[in-house]
Amino acid sequence: MNLRINKWIVTCIMSVAIVGNGVAQNSRTDKVQTYVMENPYPVEKIVPPTGTKVKNVILMIGDGMSLMHVYSAWTANRGKLYLENCEVTGLSKTYCANKLVTDSGAGGTAMAIGQKTNYHSVGVDVNGNPQPSLIKLAKQKGMSAGVAVTCRLWDATPADFCCHNTDRDNEDEIIADYVNCEADYVVGGGAKKFENRKDGRNIFKELEQKGYQVARSWEECKNLKSGKIFAVTDSVDTPLPAERGDRLAQSSLKGIELLNQNPNGFFMMIEGSQLDDYGHFNDLDLLMQETHDFDRTVGKILEWAAKDGETLVVVTADHETGGLTLIDGDKDKGEIKCKFSTTGHSGVMVPVYAFGPGAELFTGIYENTDIFHKIKSLLNL
Amino acid sequence: MNLRINKWIVTCIMSVAIVGNGVAQNSRTDKVQTYVMENPYPVEKIVPPTGTKVKNVILMIGDGMSLMHVYSAWTANRGKLYLENCEVTGLSKTYCANKLVTDSGAGGTAMAIGQKTNYHSVGVDVNGNPQPSLIKLAKQKGMSAGVAVTCRLWDATPADFCCHNTDRDNEDEIIADYVNCEADYVVGGGAKKFENRKDGRNIFKELEQKGYQVARSWEECKNLKSGKIFAVTDSVDTPLPAERGDRLAQSSLKGIELLNQNPNGFFMMIEGSQLDDYGHFNDLDLLMQETHDFDRTVGKILEWAAKDGETLVVVTADHETGGLTLIDGDKDKGEIKCKFSTTGHSGVMVPVYAFGPGAELFTGIYENTDIFHKIKSLLNL
Repeated sequence: MNLRINKWIVTCIMSVAIVGNGVAQNSRTDKVQTYVMENPYPVEKIVPPTGTKVKNVILMIGDGMSLMHVYSAWTANRGKLYLENCEVTGLSKTYCANKLVTDSGAGGTAMAIGQKTNYHSVGVDVNGNPQPSLIKLAKQKGMSAGVAVTCRLWDATPADFCCHNTDRDNEDEIIADYVNCEADYVVGGGAKKFENRKDGRNIFKELEQKGYQVARSWEECKNLKSGKIFAVTDSVDTPLPAERGDRLAQSSLKGIELLNQNPNGFFMMIEGSQLDDYGHFNDLDLLMQETHDFDRTVGKILEWAAKDGETLVVVTADHETGGLTLIDGDKDKGEIKCKFSTTGHSGVMVPVYAFGPGAELFTGIYENTDIFHKIKSLLNL
Repeated sequence: MNLRINKWIVTCIMSVAIVGNGVAQNSRTDKVQTYVMENPYPVEKIVPPTGTKVKNVILMIGDGMSLMHVYSAWTANRGKLYLENCEVTGLSKTYCANKLVTDSGAGGTAMAIGQKTNYHSVGVDVNGNPQPSLIKLAKQKGMSAGVAVTCRLWDATPADFCCHNTDRDNEDEIIADYVNCEADYVVGGGAKKFENRKDGRNIFKELEQKGYQVARSWEECKNLKSGKIFAVTDSVDTPLPAERGDRLAQSSLKGIELLNQNPNGFFMMIEGSQLDDYGHFNDLDLLMQETHDFDRTVGKILEWAAKDGETLVVVTADHETGGLTLIDGDKDKGEIKCKFSTTGHSGVMVPVYAFGPGAELFTGIYENTDIFHKIKSLLNL
């Protein structure tokens, strides 16, 4: 474990060096990296249900996960991914209101509130006005709603769906705003900004006053059987993928178990958060580990949805991170040779993968905001 | 015109230097290039027809045209492309039988004959056996068939559909094989290998003996009104996009006019051939010119298909070329800043865009060979 954390710290320091000096000498950018997946996982065929009723929607976001990330992960896992079970694909245009290359704030907000907004905004329109996200709209209709991520909860994507701020860097404000988010189930990291705050507030206490059971570890969370749950399992992000095991899949399925108790249905957002971080760090090894963890989570969710029969699953990304190119590889050996072109995001459409009732609406080329509108329409929100 | 050709020659020499020496000092690889599109073109909304009968299929291949190429071209043209009129999108896996990163030989052959084959093969299976392509299968069913490209006809993509060889570099053999291709309409470049050949054959004369009207210029070709036409308009490739105008669109529409005289319908393959070359050369300027020329051709074809009502149009690529990343840009100014990661091809799925009856079959994730099987099934070949 220490080795992994040391590696991560070194990566972080390197990334700061890169960001600070353009392309520094020790940068990984523009250099070929090789990754071999030693232990590929089997992938089952999952048949989409045949019904047309959409009771629940699960939106899964791989932060920074472009088509290149997916094909690299597919090659490394010997030419198979759970994602391939999605029977419909589309293409989503990711630009935001004031920049071609979006961040996760504006990129996720487009899907959360259905409007293009400004770079770094979360849950607000271009004028800075808070707008109801799919979480709030589902709650207003008597449905349940939840969020499961692997990152700190002040990070952009969960904030896009649960909070409102013109600047994602207002981290203390964003964390305090979770008190108003109305979600029935929230799980992620970031405990250090919930208590011992400069403003004297204890957000954990405030959440309890709002009726949440607050869990401070995954062990604690997974034993809860009903009611509103707010689980903040780590001080900042959840552990590296090799350390946390299938936590994202477990916390997602736990959320589904709870939210699905509502006969009116539910909306849930699940994020593979740290693909983006490892794209920024140009760390192919960790990027592939995260992408495979996300894909295995997709597999668990699709299995559940196939049995349920009334759940639409939509898998997509907010943008591309790293300008990844798969230069060469061997899918029989699980070997990939990749180059990153940037430590930032790049401009490209991202694929949308859909499974289950309503999936057919997600083919074609459309704005990222249309993902909101399609889900809103299918759930009659 | 001389300026443009000089630029092209310089680009070719540079590319040889790059290929010969890895990444040479004067390489464009890994460097940011800026392109501003001075004269964007308007894009019309084209509504797909509502009927379900598939009488004709037009397969359009942008050689090396990945999602990044498309989004870069979209940004440069102020956020619009004709391609966006395609109502269905899918993702095609491009690897070939013996390599993850395919060439145009095996990449196009997969779509032409429905089998994964070896790197550099054209129109043959993994054992080197010639297999009938969609061109020949259409002819066997009494339909018409044709090909329109901008490259020399010994280049891989037209050869994939019209010829059979285990090595695309057997250029003289490939050209001679057009005598057996059975297509009703072929237009492209490459005259220098049809006559004054080492083997003493004059392929133009042999084509005439097979009943073709042989045209040696586009002017000559466009005045022909019926019958089988074989037009070889240039010694090698057709001129640069700025010089040849809308030749690809014109030669495609001419082919459609002729092939559509057959009441049994037609199959046609149209290629934007030189996107690939300019990807190899890492020449963003020429790459964008070719991509926009191809997109305008897509527009003309979709307009025709919308009026016809019984024609499926499928637009895709054989692979990605150049490892293109759109680092930054401004769609209001038509400015893009891009980096190429390689002078070769990269490994990634390529999008498939479909318009018209049968389009719905082209969503999801599938093998490039499935494009053949879907078309074969729709045309009952």
